[in-house]
Amino acid sequence: MKRSFIREILESINKDTISFAGGLPDESLFPIKDLKEANIKVYDKANNLQYSVSSGLDSLKEKIANFYNKDGFETTKENILITTGSQQALYIIAKYFNNRDIIIEEPSYLGAINIFRANLLNMKGVKLNYDGIDLNSFEDSFKKIKLAYLIPDYQNPTGACYNKYNREMIAKIVLKNGGYIIEDAPYSNIYFKNKQKPISSLIPNNTFHLGSFSKILSPSFRVGWIRANKDIILKLTQIKETIDLHTSTISQLTIDNYLEDESRFNNHLKIIRLNYLDKLEYFKNSLNKFLPEFKYTTPKGGMFIYGTLDNLDTFKLVKQCLRENVAFVPGNQFYLDKSSFNSEIRFNFTNTAKDKVDIGLEKIAKIVDTLKI
Amino acid sequence: MKRSFIREILESINKDTISFAGGLPDESLFPIKDLKEANIKVYDKANNLQYSVSSGLDSLKEKIANFYNKDGFETTKENILITTGSQQALYIIAKYFNNRDIIIEEPSYLGAINIFRANLLNMKGVKLNYDGIDLNSFEDSFKKIKLAYLIPDYQNPTGACYNKYNREMIAKIVLKNGGYIIEDAPYSNIYFKNKQKPISSLIPNNTFHLGSFSKILSPSFRVGWIRANKDIILKLTQIKETIDLHTSTISQLTIDNYLEDESRFNNHLKIIRLNYLDKLEYFKNSLNKFLPEFKYTTPKGGMFIYGTLDNLDTFKLVKQCLRENVAFVPGNQFYLDKSSFNSEIRFNFTNTAKDKVDIGLEKIAKIVDTLKI
Repeated sequence: MKRSFIREILESINKDTISFAGGLPDESLFPIKDLKEANIKVYDKANNLQYSVSSGLDSLKEKIANFYNKDGFETTKENILITTGSQQALYIIAKYFNNRDIIIEEPSYLGAINIFRANLLNMKGVKLNYDGIDLNSFEDSFKKIKLAYLIPDYQNPTGACYNKYNREMIAKIVLKNGGYIIEDAPYSNIYFKNKQKPISSLIPNNTFHLGSFSKILSPSFRVGWIRANKDIILKLTQIKETIDLHTSTISQLTIDNYLEDESRFNNHLKIIRLNYLDKLEYFKNSLNKFLPEFKYTTPKGGMFIYGTLDNLDTFKLVKQCLRENVAFVPGNQFYLDKSSFNSEIRFNFTNTAKDKVDIGLEKIAKIVDTLKI
Repeated sequence: MKRSFIREILESINKDTISFAGGLPDESLFPIKDLKEANIKVYDKANNLQYSVSSGLDSLKEKIANFYNKDGFETTKENILITTGSQQALYIIAKYFNNRDIIIEEPSYLGAINIFRANLLNMKGVKLNYDGIDLNSFEDSFKKIKLAYLIPDYQNPTGACYNKYNREMIAKIVLKNGGYIIEDAPYSNIYFKNKQKPISSLIPNNTFHLGSFSKILSPSFRVGWIRANKDIILKLTQIKETIDLHTSTISQLTIDNYLEDESRFNNHLKIIRLNYLDKLEYFKNSLNKFLPEFKYTTPKGGMFIYGTLDNLDTFKLVKQCLRENVAFVPGNQFYLDKSSFNSEIRFNFTNTAKDKVDIGLEKIAKIVDTLKI
C-alpha cells in the first residue's frame, strides 16, 4: 500500500507554504464558540464518558435521519451507522465488498482509490464528464460489475455535478440490473444555488449514502455516517465494531448537542455557502489574471476548481512548486494509472486567504512560464 | 463475521441490569473536572479543529514515549502511532499481517479473536496458565508461526500475569527464531503492587506494544497507541490513514492537555489502583459468601476475576441470568472453539457498586442452585 501523495503534500506543508492542495475547510468558519458550548455539556454526566454502542448514539442517528426526511427521503435511525469520519464509512463498505470488482469515476477521490486497493477491490474507471458519468460506458460496465462508487455532488477532484437526467438514468440502470451504488456526498450541503437530490433517494435499497460533518462543522471530530437499508447497516455495524468498537463519544455528543439548535445550524450552513461562493469568485478572478491559459468549468458547489493546462506535465510542475512553497494536487493522482501524462490540476479554493491566492497563483504562473521555455 | 456476544450483552443491558460483563472502568473515577478543563482549552485555536496528521499529534506522541523512557524502555515519538482506541491498534496490526498464522493465548480477548478472523489470520491457541503461557507449547508453535498475540499484564479474560521468567524465556525464543510479538497492555497501569516489565522492552525490534487511555482516563475519547520500531510504524501509518485519516484531534488534544500536569495524572492512577483493589477485595468477599464453589486465582491487577464453577455449563447459566437482569461473560466466549462445554466465568469487578455486587452474586447463586437440581 502506497502512502497518498496528497497526505505527503499536506504533511510537508509548513507555515510558509501557500497550499491549494488539501480538501481543507476554512477554519475561520468553524463555529468555535457554539461547538465549545456543545462540548462542555458532555461533561454534565459521567456516563457520557463511558464506552458506548458500536452503531452510534441514538439521538445523533435520529437527527441525521431527519436531515434525509426533510428532503423527502424517508429514513429512520435504523438506516444510519455513525462512523469515524466518512473515510471510515468508505473503508467499512470496502471491507464488506472485499475482493469484488467496482466501477469508479475517472478521475476520482484518491482516498477512495487507496481504500479499495487496501481491500482488494478491482477498480474499473468510467469517464466522468462535468454533468455526470458517461452513461453508455457506465451501463456496459454495471451490467457485469454491479457495484459503483460515485460522488455526484461537486465531486472531488473535478467539482462535477450530476444532472437530473444522469441521476435518474443511473437509478434505472441499477434497478434493471440489481447491484449497489456507493454514493459519497461529503459536499452535498455546500451548494451555491440548489441542493441536489441524492441518487440514493431513488433507489434506497440499492445504495449506501455517505455523509460527513468534516466539511460543514469541523474535521477534528471524525464523525461521518452511512445511510443504507437496515439489514446492511447491521452487517456494517459488525465490521465497524471490529475496527474501533465505536466512534468517539465526546465527538458524537458534541455534534449532537450542537445540532439541537437547528436554525443555528442552518444559518451556519448558509454562511459557509456564501463564503465559499465568494472565495470561488475571487479564485476565478485571480486565475483569469495570472493563469488565463487554465481551462476549467465553474463548480456549482464544493471546494475544488479542476481544469487543465494544455500540454504541461502538472506532476512535474507541482514538484517545482513545492520547492517554492506553493502546493496543489496534480491530476495524475486521481487516476488509476498515475504514470500517464496528465496536464490537469485540482485547486482547493476554500482554505487560502485572498491575498495569498494571488501570490500563490502568480508564483505558479511564473514556474509555468519557465517550464514552457 | 459474527457479532461479539459481549457487545450483544452490553447492548441488551438496561438500567435494571447488574452487569459483571463488560470491561468497563468505574465511571465515578473519571477525572471529569480535569478532563473538561483540558478539553475546553482545545477551542483556544481554530487550527486545533482542522484536519491533522495520520500518525498522531507530536506532543502526545512525545508524552507517550516518555512513559516508556521513565520505565527505562528507550522510545521516541517516531516509535509511536496514535490509534482510535487500542481496538484499532490491533486491527491495523492484523491488517498488516493479513492472512498469516498467529499464536494466541487460550482463553484470549474476544475482540482480538474477532479482529484476527476479520483479517484472515489463522489462529492457534496455546494454553495460558496463571503465571504465563505454557512455554513448551509456545516454543514449539513459535518456531513455525513466528507471530504471537499476548496480554502479559492482568490478561483479559483471566487476570493472568506473566512472571519474570516467563517474560524472559519468551524474549529468548523470539530472538532465537525471529518473528514478532504483539504485546497488548491496556491494563499495565492498573497493578495492585508492582508494575510489570514489558516483554517488548527486552526485544524492542520484534514487538508491537499496545497501550490505551480507555481504562485509565476514559474510553469515550477512543485514544490508544502502538509502540514499535520506526520502519514498522511508517508502514502502519499508511494503513491507519486508509482506515480513518487520523484519530479525533479533539480527543488527542484533550488528553495531551490533561497529561501536561504529570503529577496529577500519577495521583489519578494511584486512586484507580487503590479503588480497584478495594473493589476486588469486596468482590472476593461477596464471592466467598454467595458462590463459595467458584474457584479462582486472585488477580494482581486489571479488572477481571476469572474462575470456574465445576461441571456447570456457564453459557447456559448466563442466558438464565440475563433474563433475571444479571450479566457476566461465560468462558466459552474466549476460546476458538466456542461449542465445547465450558464452566468458566469472567467477572468484571470494577464497574458495579458494592451493594449491587452482593445482589448480583446472590441472584447468580440462586440460578446456579436451580441448575444443579
